[in-house]
Amino acid sequence: MGIIHRFTSIEDGEFRWQDVSVSAYGPENSRADLATRQILIGMGEQSPHFHMRYFAVQPGGYTALDQHAHDHGVYILHGRARLRLGDEEHELQTGDVVYIPGNEMHQFFTVGDEPFGFLCVVPAKR
Amino acid sequence: MGIIHRFTSIEDGEFRWQDVSVSAYGPENSRADLATRQILIGMGEQSPHFHMRYFAVQPGGYTALDQHAHDHGVYILHGRARLRLGDEEHELQTGDVVYIPGNEMHQFFTVGDEPFGFLCVVPAKR
Repeated sequence: MGIIHRFTSIEDGEFRWQDVSVSAYGPENSRADLATRQILIGMGEQSPHFHMRYFAVQPGGYTALDQHAHDHGVYILHGRARLRLGDEEHELQTGDVVYIPGNEMHQFFTVGDEPFGFLCVVPAKR
Repeated sequence: MGIIHRFTSIEDGEFRWQDVSVSAYGPENSRADLATRQILIGMGEQSPHFHMRYFAVQPGGYTALDQHAHDHGVYILHGRARLRLGDEEHELQTGDVVYIPGNEMHQFFTVGDEPFGFLCVVPAKR
């Protein structure tokens, strides 16, 4: 049987869904109070191959500087960001798609006055 | 090295990205002229675990009635749809998330006057 998480509201510029809990993101993130994570498709949905998460980062915040074996598929849902990707930096806008291969260093910084939110797909086994 | 596909425009209500080709969707779809597919993250991006595609269906159109072993992670980017999912039917709005397990029958029908568009994540091996 399929599972539907209905979009319910926008709170402080961040998206919310039915039956999806919101958690602070990343103990290693010094601005963890400015970033949240929601697992839209994960172990709770018994998804065996991939998981889909939503991250929101308030103005002034950023995600952890990460480098790990698994890859990411990213879709920017709202706002703008600066992405450190390996040795490069990129500006990202709503609607942009990013593929981050395994072992590539990456970090997102919110740009501007609006919260930055993105979908992040990862392998289920990681 | 990562890959970025920048969002470029909206054409006939459908999203477009840099360096992403648009193809008609589904020879088994009697309204194939009303549906398009774009592979945002796939073999071209050398993504080994999951692929991310975007489908757009114009008003009056629908996707093929599908049933297959692999699962889908769906995020509704714009518009509205009716989803046949197994024996049930659901109305979907922009922002809704759907997890469709393997072997579950499914078909999307655009509802209303606006094109319906969604991200669809699948395992790379299927």
